Amino acid sequence: MAPSVIPTTVNPDIQKERNAASFSSDEFAAWWSGGEEKLKFNRDVREYLQKDMDVEEVRQIHNKSHEEIYELSSKSAIAAARKLQRLQKERNPGGNDYWPALYDNQVMWGLVPGGNPFGVMYVMLVKALQAQCTPEQYEEFGKRIENFEVCGTYAQTELGHGTYLRGLETRADFDPKTDEFVLNTPKISSYKWWPGGLGHSSNHCMVMAQLYVDNKPKGPHMFYVQVRDEETHEPLPGIHIGDIGKKMGFIGVNNGFLGLKNVRIPRTRMLMRHAQVNADGSYVSSPSNVLTYFAMVRTRCVIAWNNAVMLAIAATIATRYSAVRRQSPINPKEPEPQIMDHVTQQMKLFPEIATSVAYRLASAHLWNLYDITLGDISNGRYERLPELHSLSCALKVNCSSDSTIGVERLRLACGGHGYLSSSNMGNVYVNATAACTYEGENTVLLLQIGRFLMKSWRAALSGAPLAPTVRYLAEVQKKPEFGSWTGTWDNMVQAMQFAAAKKTALAFKSLSSRLSRGETEETAANHTGIELTQAAELHGRAFVFSSFTDEVTGPNARTRSAALNQVLENLLELYLVKESLNHMANLLRFINLTDTDLTRLQDRLETVLTKLRPDAVAIVDGFDFSDVQLNSTLGSFDGNAYERIFDAAMKNPMNQKSVPKSFHEHLKPFMKSNI
Amino acid sequence: MAPSVIPTTVNPDIQKERNAASFSSDEFAAWWSGGEEKLKFNRDVREYLQKDMDVEEVRQIHNKSHEEIYELSSKSAIAAARKLQRLQKERNPGGNDYWPALYDNQVMWGLVPGGNPFGVMYVMLVKALQAQCTPEQYEEFGKRIENFEVCGTYAQTELGHGTYLRGLETRADFDPKTDEFVLNTPKISSYKWWPGGLGHSSNHCMVMAQLYVDNKPKGPHMFYVQVRDEETHEPLPGIHIGDIGKKMGFIGVNNGFLGLKNVRIPRTRMLMRHAQVNADGSYVSSPSNVLTYFAMVRTRCVIAWNNAVMLAIAATIATRYSAVRRQSPINPKEPEPQIMDHVTQQMKLFPEIATSVAYRLASAHLWNLYDITLGDISNGRYERLPELHSLSCALKVNCSSDSTIGVERLRLACGGHGYLSSSNMGNVYVNATAACTYEGENTVLLLQIGRFLMKSWRAALSGAPLAPTVRYLAEVQKKPEFGSWTGTWDNMVQAMQFAAAKKTALAFKSLSSRLSRGETEETAANHTGIELTQAAELHGRAFVFSSFTDEVTGPNARTRSAALNQVLENLLELYLVKESLNHMANLLRFINLTDTDLTRLQDRLETVLTKLRPDAVAIVDGFDFSDVQLNSTLGSFDGNAYERIFDAAMKNPMNQKSVPKSFHEHLKPFMKSNI
Repeated sequence: MAPSVIPTTVNPDIQKERNAASFSSDEFAAWWSGGEEKLKFNRDVREYLQKDMDVEEVRQIHNKSHEEIYELSSKSAIAAARKLQRLQKERNPGGNDYWPALYDNQVMWGLVPGGNPFGVMYVMLVKALQAQCTPEQYEEFGKRIENFEVCGTYAQTELGHGTYLRGLETRADFDPKTDEFVLNTPKISSYKWWPGGLGHSSNHCMVMAQLYVDNKPKGPHMFYVQVRDEETHEPLPGIHIGDIGKKMGFIGVNNGFLGLKNVRIPRTRMLMRHAQVNADGSYVSSPSNVLTYFAMVRTRCVIAWNNAVMLAIAATIATRYSAVRRQSPINPKEPEPQIMDHVTQQMKLFPEIATSVAYRLASAHLWNLYDITLGDISNGRYERLPELHSLSCALKVNCSSDSTIGVERLRLACGGHGYLSSSNMGNVYVNATAACTYEGENTVLLLQIGRFLMKSWRAALSGAPLAPTVRYLAEVQKKPEFGSWTGTWDNMVQAMQFAAAKKTALAFKSLSSRLSRGETEETAANHTGIELTQAAELHGRAFVFSSFTDEVTGPNARTRSAALNQVLENLLELYLVKESLNHMANLLRFINLTDTDLTRLQDRLETVLTKLRPDAVAIVDGFDFSDVQLNSTLGSFDGNAYERIFDAAMKNPMNQKSVPKSFHEHLKPFMKSNI
Repeated sequence: MAPSVIPTTVNPDIQKERNAASFSSDEFAAWWSGGEEKLKFNRDVREYLQKDMDVEEVRQIHNKSHEEIYELSSKSAIAAARKLQRLQKERNPGGNDYWPALYDNQVMWGLVPGGNPFGVMYVMLVKALQAQCTPEQYEEFGKRIENFEVCGTYAQTELGHGTYLRGLETRADFDPKTDEFVLNTPKISSYKWWPGGLGHSSNHCMVMAQLYVDNKPKGPHMFYVQVRDEETHEPLPGIHIGDIGKKMGFIGVNNGFLGLKNVRIPRTRMLMRHAQVNADGSYVSSPSNVLTYFAMVRTRCVIAWNNAVMLAIAATIATRYSAVRRQSPINPKEPEPQIMDHVTQQMKLFPEIATSVAYRLASAHLWNLYDITLGDISNGRYERLPELHSLSCALKVNCSSDSTIGVERLRLACGGHGYLSSSNMGNVYVNATAACTYEGENTVLLLQIGRFLMKSWRAALSGAPLAPTVRYLAEVQKKPEFGSWTGTWDNMVQAMQFAAAKKTALAFKSLSSRLSRGETEETAANHTGIELTQAAELHGRAFVFSSFTDEVTGPNARTRSAALNQVLENLLELYLVKESLNHMANLLRFINLTDTDLTRLQDRLETVLTKLRPDAVAIVDGFDFSDVQLNSTLGSFDGNAYERIFDAAMKNPMNQKSVPKSFHEHLKPFMKSNI
């Protein structure tokens, strides 16, 4: 084998950046990871997981066929599961802090870059079984999933229905004669469609279906259905199951379909913790289940957190590449600069770094609120639920949307080479954008938030008490300082709240006027949809403004060095300034900013970009991704981007022979015919 | 084989839309295509090309390996070339209106969905040879390319250089002893990288290299180099050539790399139409070549045109799908509506339809200007060149950027199913976004436009004459109506021009103040980069505003029916209103819009969405894409979306066997070990 073209040394252009940084990347990394202990733990596990993996094989994923991608993903995901089990046994036998806890953790990133076909099994199925099974049921089949003795997934979405659960068409009819349920997907549109791992990676499946007792509908319920033979893996009678085909991303996840034709399961396979069907056909409905509903708040924090991390990955790749790529002299007599010296390039990179930090902090903040509220709930206090639900939706929507746009901006900042699969930027993009759709489609969620804001605004007008994170809706009406511009960070937070409140007021006015014209509540809400979603978006932005400002200027600052605080202050300044400029149409509509104020904001933008320039590489180093996690020819720690692009091309299977088959079959005969 | 699940009937939900439209889709299609004759011609050729293609095989492209994708693309592209040659012989022997003229035309779309590995050969190489060869050279090797007796591509970009041509590292040293050039790519970063078809689809190649005579640099020149044996296709000595690997898109294009090690070519293989090296080593430099430079204007019109079409494709798919998908009742007592009845969904679809029309018209308009100016040039008048260059850059930048964002918005409007490769939305996206980078990276172009605006502003201040499309820079200073809001279409055009002029003035002020502080012109331009790019963007937008308004309200209206004019007026209204709202920060900064004006704009937005609702399907029908061109399970003319998604999944090779290999090799042993 030819010697590698990749130098064993670090690219001097990137080393220079590290040497000149004003703060310690390791301190940043410890802060970012939640403490030094946590950082050490993450690094140790990561090293263990990555040390004997076949990196070269995994990197070939994009050159493979759909089927080969699945085979590789399945193999890699199982290898990682084995390792985590081994770690658990070695370090804390009997516990669950390594396995399965880390199976959907960031330490896994890069090991299965096409996505984990057994991911849904642990991210959703085990948790859903824990929430929906009786203790006996969990003992009988939940445990087997937990132990990976069998494999499973969670099937809810159908070809014809996603958002609107009450419209699901799969049905489960109770047959009292045999004490069974009979499951059917009566039409093509009723087929379960999309569940990760459903195609070929599950022998059991949790199925959401419309329960019918005595042919009377009882609404959607959960059923646990065996779909494949445990020994042969052949689909069971009445089961039509397979892979739904290639997608933009998550190419190894084996998303599947499931058709059911008179599939009979024992009555006890309906998950009966909350609702029950008895042998005599009597039905006991579920008491409204606050905790199930509330679990979604946590899921949305996780999504925001993960998407913030994806943005950080893309920012790391693009920033390192911008330190080693030299192009287009600024002054014709000087050599070509690192492209990061072009101000327009800084404007592509640094705002995304700041956005990533902002969302990571906002999701951590909300996660805290979640934990506190969980305590409240166990004491019977449910008041904050609608507030947190709305806030988590807003965070999920804004973070998925902003991170997607940000990743793409960063990819474009890498020029042509960002279009190479080996840059990994495309893969990060398709993962990020998927979050705009799953776990609540973004527009649908914004409309839900909008409805919550309408209720809150009505309460604010009537002087009723408001939940803490919407209290600003009342405050803006009493405190004039919210609507006047001084340009301090606190004032900028207030300005965004003011804009959110004013947009809420506009939507409220439109809605009210439609209602007064005789439209139904629902029709009026549909017609006010655009304004409702705009208000909802700003509500979410105001929260991110305040949580970022609190973290940087609040008491936590005392736990950090002055140097690190300075960097965080620069990131906060950049975030608030660029976001204020991005949403200036809303600010200008409601707040009197002078032309001088606007010029000053532009100055502040350019000034803070300059301040961040020398620290940019050190900041992304502080995100602490390993090369395997980044999985990018452009973004490796050593900065040897060109050599890695070159190396990846040489390993492309197409280049292992010099002349392709089609030359002899098609190209040559065609050219000869033209002579 | 099982009978197809796809009905032979049209989905009644979409038929209902067609029946209720207020105008004729065929009239729209004729207008959109440039006349009835043109429409008929396009449809005929398209039918001929599509009639016996293996659609099912082509649809499998996303399930294939990188190498298989290439083989399929190569085969399909050659089949299409044969057909066009046959058409040429049948319908107009000796002409070139079918072959090769249509080989890069829209009629080809869908035939080679991974991209044509011989595309660059006709889009760029033939044209470059025509422009750069002496007549003798063209006769000797240009003709062979034109006839497809040999295959070739155009190699300019290197691993280390794209934007900055003067930085290219490939060198061609003249050796007077042998009357040859010696070509070398001295470093990894000098490798030619990216040319379409370079990997395995070319035996000749036009190479841009730094010419050295007597070891003295003469700048970049073009050389025609044979890279593979014409009989065996084996790379020639000194040639290192292959495929650069998988990319986000253009997965079948076979983008390649080329390393040259002491490759000798006869002196006469330098393209000598404009510059020459004689046998004695004397060098004749090129007179500045206006036409070569000007050819780029045309290329950028083509890009804008193509990207407008891609947006129209995505809009067609998403609109048809939104007519047949039913989800989430608006009123709980009514059945689930077509999702197009949700106002937020209309807000995703209709603005993109309008944007597509706007850019298509703007590029046609600029194309006209190009033709007129071409006439001027032949009469020795070059004044409009810098203006048209800037305008074409602005159109390319804004259209590539807006269409990319629009395609993605439309994909997201299709929910989860838009993420399926079989929807084709992902493929349209990756094709659209590539245009942000190729043929002049967008930010680099914006900075060039910015420089032109600075010159024009300086001229405006001094009262010097201005080119027609920047004349508004002077007018806004004289005519107060530009800066006051009435909300008519003409006023909205003026308002956008006013904002562009004011942004130009701001950038000019910042630049001037930096110059007066002693910065060099180039450093000051770098530091003013953000404001320069903003002014440039608005300059481009003002042009699209005015060309769209001209087409709809100008004399062409008389050639159309009242019904069609009404639809176009609705699209214009939507475009101007939504764009004004999108850029409201700039409008509000410079123009005094009252709160009533803003409320009125929101009303207009909602009103025109309602007006367009009944015509939406008919409009996208008027874009006149065939199902093969759309290549989408969601967007077919018959509206049978679910059945087509289902059908595509069934044909996935993974579903042709019930149990995957990895079950026995990995999954089963692992599960057994956990019991």
